[in-house]
Amino acid sequence: MATTAEAEAMRRAVALAARGLGHTSPNPVVGCVILDADGRVAGEGWHQRAGGPHAEVHALRDAGERARGGTAVVTLEPCNHTGRTGPCAQALLEAGIARVVYAVADPTDGAAGGAATLAAAGTAVESGLLAEEATAVNEAWLTSVRHGRPFVLWKYAATLDGRSAAADGTSRWITSAASRADVHRLRAEADAVVIGSGTLRADDPHLAARGPEGVRQPLRVVLDSDATIAPGARVLDGTAPTLIAVAEDVAAPRLPGADTVRLPRAAGGRGLHIPAVLDELLSRGVRSVLLEGGPTLAGAFLAARAVDKVVGYLAPVLLGAGAPALADAGITTITQALRLTVTDVLRLGPDLRVTAAPEPSAAPAVPNPTVSEES
Amino acid sequence: MATTAEAEAMRRAVALAARGLGHTSPNPVVGCVILDADGRVAGEGWHQRAGGPHAEVHALRDAGERARGGTAVVTLEPCNHTGRTGPCAQALLEAGIARVVYAVADPTDGAAGGAATLAAAGTAVESGLLAEEATAVNEAWLTSVRHGRPFVLWKYAATLDGRSAAADGTSRWITSAASRADVHRLRAEADAVVIGSGTLRADDPHLAARGPEGVRQPLRVVLDSDATIAPGARVLDGTAPTLIAVAEDVAAPRLPGADTVRLPRAAGGRGLHIPAVLDELLSRGVRSVLLEGGPTLAGAFLAARAVDKVVGYLAPVLLGAGAPALADAGITTITQALRLTVTDVLRLGPDLRVTAAPEPSAAPAVPNPTVSEES
Repeated sequence: MATTAEAEAMRRAVALAARGLGHTSPNPVVGCVILDADGRVAGEGWHQRAGGPHAEVHALRDAGERARGGTAVVTLEPCNHTGRTGPCAQALLEAGIARVVYAVADPTDGAAGGAATLAAAGTAVESGLLAEEATAVNEAWLTSVRHGRPFVLWKYAATLDGRSAAADGTSRWITSAASRADVHRLRAEADAVVIGSGTLRADDPHLAARGPEGVRQPLRVVLDSDATIAPGARVLDGTAPTLIAVAEDVAAPRLPGADTVRLPRAAGGRGLHIPAVLDELLSRGVRSVLLEGGPTLAGAFLAARAVDKVVGYLAPVLLGAGAPALADAGITTITQALRLTVTDVLRLGPDLRVTAAPEPSAAPAVPNPTVSEES
Repeated sequence: MATTAEAEAMRRAVALAARGLGHTSPNPVVGCVILDADGRVAGEGWHQRAGGPHAEVHALRDAGERARGGTAVVTLEPCNHTGRTGPCAQALLEAGIARVVYAVADPTDGAAGGAATLAAAGTAVESGLLAEEATAVNEAWLTSVRHGRPFVLWKYAATLDGRSAAADGTSRWITSAASRADVHRLRAEADAVVIGSGTLRADDPHLAARGPEGVRQPLRVVLDSDATIAPGARVLDGTAPTLIAVAEDVAAPRLPGADTVRLPRAAGGRGLHIPAVLDELLSRGVRSVLLEGGPTLAGAFLAARAVDKVVGYLAPVLLGAGAPALADAGITTITQALRLTVTDVLRLGPDLRVTAAPEPSAAPAVPNPTVSEES
């Protein structure tokens, strides 16, 4: 049974873990608080970047000798393997930690087992404390490990009547500055931002994250099967890494400031094959994708059941005409509707931000999902 | 300065007033609490139905002799005129009320002046206590008096991507049972429910309010300029009053179970002239309209700037195709967008209910607003 001090420490550890969002892929975010033998906070740390020390190591260093006989409170089961850094279970034992409380078991094949090692060495081990909060902060990584592909968050902005632009195509600004700032936070937390060539042509977006000094830039990805990108596109400005994905039957363009990859087309012939796109991104260390494409690209991802979370910025605006926020998800009748569960609603300036997740009972994927580039 | 007891009494009076919603038109809803000379609650009442005693009279009867030297706390300025009932200001004086606290001044030409009469007779009078709450409960009536037309609430149900039906027209059920029950509450509070002939043909709705025994039925109004209604339509079942509005160049159909009226067509030739429709309803004692028509009828009302409040039931569902919740509001570019202010967001079962009001700075009405019947 965890103590009150341990529960407080876990809450702190979750907050520490969140500081790593966007910096640790392909690793999870992890936070750790060390309590001394009297239950007082002796040290804390978090996994700051892939290749750097794990959260436990930072926290043990911070605690120093006070760790001996103390408790390590950590958001994820300590690892048991030697990757780029040594196993955390061993580090905890060497520091004389008497008790380990962790929130979520490590589902990775290679890393799991730290709890068993610790217990075998005589350390008291407890799991499950604040598991919900710790799962939420690691949502992208855990989903990615479970599905073997990057976690995909579809973000859209729309009016109350579901339009993303007016009849003449104008859309600046439907949502408020507060909503747009929130989108930059999503970008900074994602490993990659994905659009199609249609959005590229229509908006020529920059896709970099604005934010505090030192904000990490996501990989900018353009699905451009027919290699239509113009050399002057803003995503090619070199301020953040960029990947242009074209079809394998097209010559890869030579673009300074961007990497290119050739991928299979979707079976339907329209756009790229979504699983191939996601495989390619995973192989590049991308664990989380922010899908910022237009209505058709979003529809293709949804049809492929490759969306794990939806964040909609709804502006209190009515248009009555113009492009819809979503198109062509392969749904023709109400019984096929994609049903979600709302997990959060926030008033953001004048707007609403609605967060929702597809229900597990969602209908199976339609065959031959395509990535369209018209959106 | 109002006392704490008076503020509590006013909060109670607002709740009492709300009991009259849907029953008092063309009168306002009013609640009244009488405090005795020691500030204790001595009686309470509310205006229950048009033609019946006003709230003050009910409350004075309830208080009896305890009213003498006491305070009347009332949501609306007491009336000064003799309508179907005597003036309330006089009744308060005769009962020996020493002080009157009201929330909102009566804006009606004929009824106003009660406060001045009371003050001239030596009664202490104070206004403005909980004015915001008292204005909200009387929103429909106050708006109606101010604009000289019925208050119009547009209600719609849509998916998160703004669709009111799937591609094949199916829509049962996009929103939850909780949302649909809430719509029945809106119907019971409205004097009239308005649809177009398109919705009549597509859904053959009944439009009556379901609810507790004795729920008052709104007037069911079908805008049917070309008199296409079939004799077997469910709105003609006689369970609630029904009005069929046709164009003045069309012979009024003879329909058992319904009243008919001939009105001018819109200048554009499509549907009826909205101001004429609203004038006709006002002349029939309708102070509040629940607009339940489809996307085109809603668009026409919005284009005519004849919508005072929007209630959207948003289901956590994605369709990607199908009829939009709103069409043809006369908006072609983003600068013309109809901007609203969100006044309330409620989770209603799995759905969201978003309440919003058009901003006062909304662009002027487009010329020749029309009521389409295709929606």
